[in-house]
Amino acid sequence: MKKRIVIIGGCAAGPKCAAKSRRLDDSTEILLYTQGENVSYSACGLPYYIGGAVNDINALIARTPEEFAQNGIQIFLNHQCSEILPGTKEVIVNDEKISYDELVLATGAVPFIPPIKNVGLRNIMKLRLIQDGIAVKELMKESKSVLIVGCGYIAIEMIEAFLKNGLKVYVIERSKHIMSFLDADFSDIVEKYILERHGASVEIIKDEVIDEFFGDGKFEGAITNKGRVIEADFCLLATGVRPNVQLARDCGIEIGVTGGIKVDNKMRTNIENIWAAGDCTQKHCLVADLPVYIGLGSVANKEGRVCAINMNGQEEVLLGVLGSAITKYFNYTISVTGITQKRAESIAAQVNYDLITTTVTKMDKVAYMPDVKPITIKLVADRNSGRILGAQGVGEGDVDKRISIITSALQKKMTVDELLHLDLTYTPPTSGTIDPLLTACYELKKQM
Amino acid sequence: MKKRIVIIGGCAAGPKCAAKSRRLDDSTEILLYTQGENVSYSACGLPYYIGGAVNDINALIARTPEEFAQNGIQIFLNHQCSEILPGTKEVIVNDEKISYDELVLATGAVPFIPPIKNVGLRNIMKLRLIQDGIAVKELMKESKSVLIVGCGYIAIEMIEAFLKNGLKVYVIERSKHIMSFLDADFSDIVEKYILERHGASVEIIKDEVIDEFFGDGKFEGAITNKGRVIEADFCLLATGVRPNVQLARDCGIEIGVTGGIKVDNKMRTNIENIWAAGDCTQKHCLVADLPVYIGLGSVANKEGRVCAINMNGQEEVLLGVLGSAITKYFNYTISVTGITQKRAESIAAQVNYDLITTTVTKMDKVAYMPDVKPITIKLVADRNSGRILGAQGVGEGDVDKRISIITSALQKKMTVDELLHLDLTYTPPTSGTIDPLLTACYELKKQM
Repeated sequence: MKKRIVIIGGCAAGPKCAAKSRRLDDSTEILLYTQGENVSYSACGLPYYIGGAVNDINALIARTPEEFAQNGIQIFLNHQCSEILPGTKEVIVNDEKISYDELVLATGAVPFIPPIKNVGLRNIMKLRLIQDGIAVKELMKESKSVLIVGCGYIAIEMIEAFLKNGLKVYVIERSKHIMSFLDADFSDIVEKYILERHGASVEIIKDEVIDEFFGDGKFEGAITNKGRVIEADFCLLATGVRPNVQLARDCGIEIGVTGGIKVDNKMRTNIENIWAAGDCTQKHCLVADLPVYIGLGSVANKEGRVCAINMNGQEEVLLGVLGSAITKYFNYTISVTGITQKRAESIAAQVNYDLITTTVTKMDKVAYMPDVKPITIKLVADRNSGRILGAQGVGEGDVDKRISIITSALQKKMTVDELLHLDLTYTPPTSGTIDPLLTACYELKKQM
Repeated sequence: MKKRIVIIGGCAAGPKCAAKSRRLDDSTEILLYTQGENVSYSACGLPYYIGGAVNDINALIARTPEEFAQNGIQIFLNHQCSEILPGTKEVIVNDEKISYDELVLATGAVPFIPPIKNVGLRNIMKLRLIQDGIAVKELMKESKSVLIVGCGYIAIEMIEAFLKNGLKVYVIERSKHIMSFLDADFSDIVEKYILERHGASVEIIKDEVIDEFFGDGKFEGAITNKGRVIEADFCLLATGVRPNVQLARDCGIEIGVTGGIKVDNKMRTNIENIWAAGDCTQKHCLVADLPVYIGLGSVANKEGRVCAINMNGQEEVLLGVLGSAITKYFNYTISVTGITQKRAESIAAQVNYDLITTTVTKMDKVAYMPDVKPITIKLVADRNSGRILGAQGVGEGDVDKRISIITSALQKKMTVDELLHLDLTYTPPTSGTIDPLLTACYELKKQM
């Protein structure tokens, strides 16, 4: 009998784990079940499909079931796993018992649907699956306005997509600041940028929540807790995701404090022969050495890979995450890695930081070059250890490079004293002689 | 009597040291002597002035003597320092004795003029000073063709500048490969790129040297060691630079094995109260822990700063350099950090590397995005320690970010095992779920 690997989930971690498992051992049977109609697709690409940068939805599908089949990986679409039976090493899929030798839970995350009255009305949309993307694009084409609920990454990307298609966009965010994973000062810089450029077409309402949706069978508008009435042609819920852990919880798999499945650094759950990877798992923050929950395709891929390696008898450990993230709003980049001032304050009881921060706005290359653009960088550091803890960056200039540099600095626990000597590349079309990162470091150094 | 700081040299390190010294102590007298007609200018910007991206030559001047004077820094242009008298703590400048309490040598580098017959002909140009840039631009405007001698960074940037102005460009390089600081395989990729795009206007001759220049008073052409005759309207020597150390050597200051002034990590020379900073000094390579010579504005700035700090009674040490460099050829980026395979082989007697390398060509972002471009990344690592030793990158995509990430990895001696877990930012317009750097790392891992 061949060893049988069963994988539940078909977006990023599941297919990655399947493909890597096959490369490591071609003697196994690999079955992948997904409740979706597609496998191995880029959920992150949906805003670009809707906006129009990507025209063919199939471009978002990395590999088809047929391509997997060629590698001896059996993909089962529209298959719902309803129960795990660890005692007999079986899962129940579409009412059928399937036995496994190794089981991988890659059940991902599900959009959080806020418990608002009438949230079930037609034309109140979410964005996670390929079908969601197609449906939102269709709806957008026949609409003149949209209400986006929540203002995180997806909302920022969807504002751009809707603006490019001529819609009037209303955004409502329950926090006092948009993009609440950023420090408030940075949230405000981003909001100002959006409103200065597109204030005629974008309205952002903060610190306010929707009490109820209304409409005759389909969405027509919402009423807020302050009595405001917002009418629009359709609504997009961008209220974040939650790790999809019900199946795991039901069979006794331990769930972490953040709500994700608790795994060790080899992606093992607490039940033997059951592994988990991707947006359904709890992560470990390398900077603060604490559990966190972050759902990202890049991390899901790494977890799928590490899971496959360990499950197939080799050894590799995941080091953890930094909380690196990036998004673009037209030519404007918003990026973060490590921990923000806000995050540091929220975990103050668990860590011993003497926090110092600095924010620098500077040109991204030598000022005399014609395409020079400003960037604003905030560094957060700990005076006790001298360590850099995190960075945030926004701007039309090359923010991405600077935050990416900090990712490798964070992984190696670089100090302010070390970073300010960093020998970065320099030529006028890409950089200045004193990089904004180093300028920020000099400022931090003064505070130490 | 005020403490007097005398600085010799006015490009990057000297002015930086002067300005930082003033900020640290406003009670000193600061005199800066330069033989040039300008101070604090960007030599690196000259190709962009000549090419036309920068129209006003004054844009390349960071600060004028008048601006320095406002901070109590006296700048003396057209002043030649001919001798240092350490015994009496004096320098001779324009035949006058000037006493100093602290002396900083920031004499920079001078273009290497190859000892070729008739190299003194008119219209055989070099590119270092502001006046050089103005002269080359004037000459270019009345020319239809140019011969560039040497094919390093300056040559690459000047090919672009000359092509943008409609010239036919001949390049002659004595090595078998252009850009000889890159590994040969990468040199060849760059050459192929240039010739595929601009082969009708650019001719690159390698492995051949000029025996003599000819012309009636002014340059008309060159004859090579293979008897080839190259005729052109003018000639640009881009044969590299040499640290300008004669003044230092003459007074007994120690010169390092690389030809640069030997300094400690506080920028002190072997003679008390004499410091050195910038392109005239020998550097310390952090990766191989060996002396190197590299002349770069970004490093000169750091050295000027560290020199000022130590000279003014505070303490800061320079960590050393990585050999990070970058240039652009139109939209094509060429970048390097750390040590190349070629370099590792040349220092094999001094280090104990078991070298492994990998080269990966991959899209710089998710393949379905419209502006996706390929990049080619080469990683060099040591199997013994597991350490990454260096990276090279070329391509129309975002090479800069990847090489910059490696700079901070190198500074902290990151291993292959660590780098392959690096939590990089991810969003389709800037990156893929599995970054080319990580793909390269996975390849290295297989070799370990």
